[in-house]
Amino acid sequence: MNLEKLRQIALQDCQLSPALPVLVGVSGGPDSLCLLDSLVRLDFKVVAAHFDHQLRETSAQDAHSVQVFASSLGIPFVAASGDVAGTARAARLSIETAARQLRYRFLFAQAYQHGAQAVAVGHNADDQVETVLMHLLRGAGLAGLSGMPYRAHLPIWSQTIPLVRPLLHIWREEILDYCQERGLRPVMDASNQDLAFSRNRLRHELIPFLETYNPRVRTALWRMSQSLAGDETVVQQAVQTAWEACQPEVQNSTVQLRLAAFRTMPAGLQRGVLRRAVEVLQSTPLDLDYAAVQRGLEFLQSPTQTARLIW
Amino acid sequence: MNLEKLRQIALQDCQLSPALPVLVGVSGGPDSLCLLDSLVRLDFKVVAAHFDHQLRETSAQDAHSVQVFASSLGIPFVAASGDVAGTARAARLSIETAARQLRYRFLFAQAYQHGAQAVAVGHNADDQVETVLMHLLRGAGLAGLSGMPYRAHLPIWSQTIPLVRPLLHIWREEILDYCQERGLRPVMDASNQDLAFSRNRLRHELIPFLETYNPRVRTALWRMSQSLAGDETVVQQAVQTAWEACQPEVQNSTVQLRLAAFRTMPAGLQRGVLRRAVEVLQSTPLDLDYAAVQRGLEFLQSPTQTARLIW
Repeated sequence: MNLEKLRQIALQDCQLSPALPVLVGVSGGPDSLCLLDSLVRLDFKVVAAHFDHQLRETSAQDAHSVQVFASSLGIPFVAASGDVAGTARAARLSIETAARQLRYRFLFAQAYQHGAQAVAVGHNADDQVETVLMHLLRGAGLAGLSGMPYRAHLPIWSQTIPLVRPLLHIWREEILDYCQERGLRPVMDASNQDLAFSRNRLRHELIPFLETYNPRVRTALWRMSQSLAGDETVVQQAVQTAWEACQPEVQNSTVQLRLAAFRTMPAGLQRGVLRRAVEVLQSTPLDLDYAAVQRGLEFLQSPTQTARLIW
Repeated sequence: MNLEKLRQIALQDCQLSPALPVLVGVSGGPDSLCLLDSLVRLDFKVVAAHFDHQLRETSAQDAHSVQVFASSLGIPFVAASGDVAGTARAARLSIETAARQLRYRFLFAQAYQHGAQAVAVGHNADDQVETVLMHLLRGAGLAGLSGMPYRAHLPIWSQTIPLVRPLLHIWREEILDYCQERGLRPVMDASNQDLAFSRNRLRHELIPFLETYNPRVRTALWRMSQSLAGDETVVQQAVQTAWEACQPEVQNSTVQLRLAAFRTMPAGLQRGVLRRAVEVLQSTPLDLDYAAVQRGLEFLQSPTQTARLIW
C-alpha cells in the first residue's frame, strides 16, 4: 500500500484537513484497522469510534480489542452498542439495513460532538466493484454505476458533516498485506458477517467468473465507475441549467414546466428534468425507474399546449 | 412483435422517411428476414442486399434463398461475394473483422448507387445487451456502455449515409416467433457462425449466469444502455462547449489549450477535452484508455504556466 498516494487521496479527493479531527468508524476488521493506522501515520487527527451491533457472541471482545488498539495509537476512542436485531424486527428492516442505520446515526452524532470535519469509513476498491455490479444487475443509471464517491454529503445523516472513504482505491489484498506488515490483528470476518447473501455470492462466484473473461476485470470496473462519476457531475450540471430553462413553478403537488424549452432538449436532459421534478415533489429521495421516466417523456410528446406531470 | 411500435422507432429513432429507399442488409438469418419483411409491410421502400462471405459450403444457396424471398416480396435485390478468408490473411485481420469490412463496404456502395437514405441492419435487443457486456468486461466508458445507437453516422463507410438498426428494441425470441408466424424460413445459424468465440460464450454462459441474480437482467442492461446513451449526448454537448472555452490552437502535432479555463472544469469535462485533443491529433479514431487520460490530467495539475499535451 502506497502511503503517499493515500495522503494525496485524503487531502484532494476526500478534502480532509490535517488540522481538524476526523472520526473513523472502526469495526475491528482489516479495512478499518488499516484506515485508522494509516491516517494516524499520516498525522491526521483521528478519533476512533466503534459501534457494537450485538449480533455475535464475541462482539464485546471485538469492542475491547478496538479500544486496546486505539489506546496503543494514543488516540481518543468512543463506543456504543445497540440492539440491531430488535430494531430490525420493530422497524421491519433487514438486519443489514438496521445495522447500518444505528451505526451511522451513532457515528455522525459522535462526529458532531467531537467537532469532526468528516466521518471516515473503510470501504475499499473491491467493495466499490461489488457495489457497481449490484447496481448493474438491478439496472442502474449513471448515478448507480458511478459507485461510492470519495466524499459524499448524505443529508439523512448530517447537513454539514460529509462521509469520506479514503481507501476506495485500495484492493482488499493490499489491505490484508498492510495489516500483516504492520502487525495489526483484525477481528475475524467482521465485515463479511454483515454482508447480505447476494453480495457474498457476487464476491465469491460472479467476480471470479467474470475474471475468466478478463483477468483484470476488477480494475476495468473500478476505472469505469471512476470515469462515470466524472460524467455524472457533468450531466448534473447540465440538468441544473436545463431545469432552470424550463422555469419550473412548484405549487402544492404539481410542477409546471415550460414545454417549449423542454421539447428542444435532448432525451438525456429531459429525463434529468423529469427526475428533478419528481424529487421536488417527494419528501424522500426516490429511485425513479426507467419505465416511469419513459412514460413521462412519451406523455410530453403528445401535442397538447400545456402539460402537467403527476406521478 | 408490435408492428406499430416498430413503425414509430423506424420513423422517430431511425429517422427513416417512407418516401426514400432504404437498403437492407440481408444475411438470410432470422433478424434480417424479419427486418426486411416488416419494413415492407410498413410500406417503406426497401432494397434487399446480400453479401456472400464464402465462408460456408452452403453460402451460394443462402444467397439464392434470399433472392427468392426478395422476389416473393416484389422488391429489388442486389448481391455480391468476396473472399473473406483471403482478405483476412492478406490484411492480417480476424475473419470477423474482414467479413464486416467487406460487407459494409458493399452495403454502403450499393446504398449510394440506389440513392438510399440509409443502410438498415438487423441487430436486435440481445445483440445490444451482448455488446454492452463485452464493453463492460473490457472496461469501457460512457460511450461503450451506451451500446449501439438506432441511427449512427460512421464516417469510415459514408460521410452522408447513416446506418440504422430498427430492431434494436426487439428480443431474439420475438424475432423467431415473428419468423414462424409469418412462415419465413431463415437459413440456419447464419449469424451465429459469424460470432467470435468470446461473444458466443457470453451469450450461452455469462447471460444465463447473470439471470440467476436477476431474471430480468437483460431488460435491465438494455434500459441501462438506452439511458446512458442519453447521458452521453449531454456529456458530448458539454465537452464541445468546454473544448471551445479552452480556445484550442492546433499546429502540426501539438494542441495548445488555455490552462486557466481547463483547470476550473470538473474532471469529467477535463477528460473529455483531453480525449478531444488526442482525436484532433490522430487521423484514425483512437480508443484512449483510462490510464492515458489519467496521466494527462495529472500532468496538467503540475503548476506550470503553460502546458503542452503530447501523446
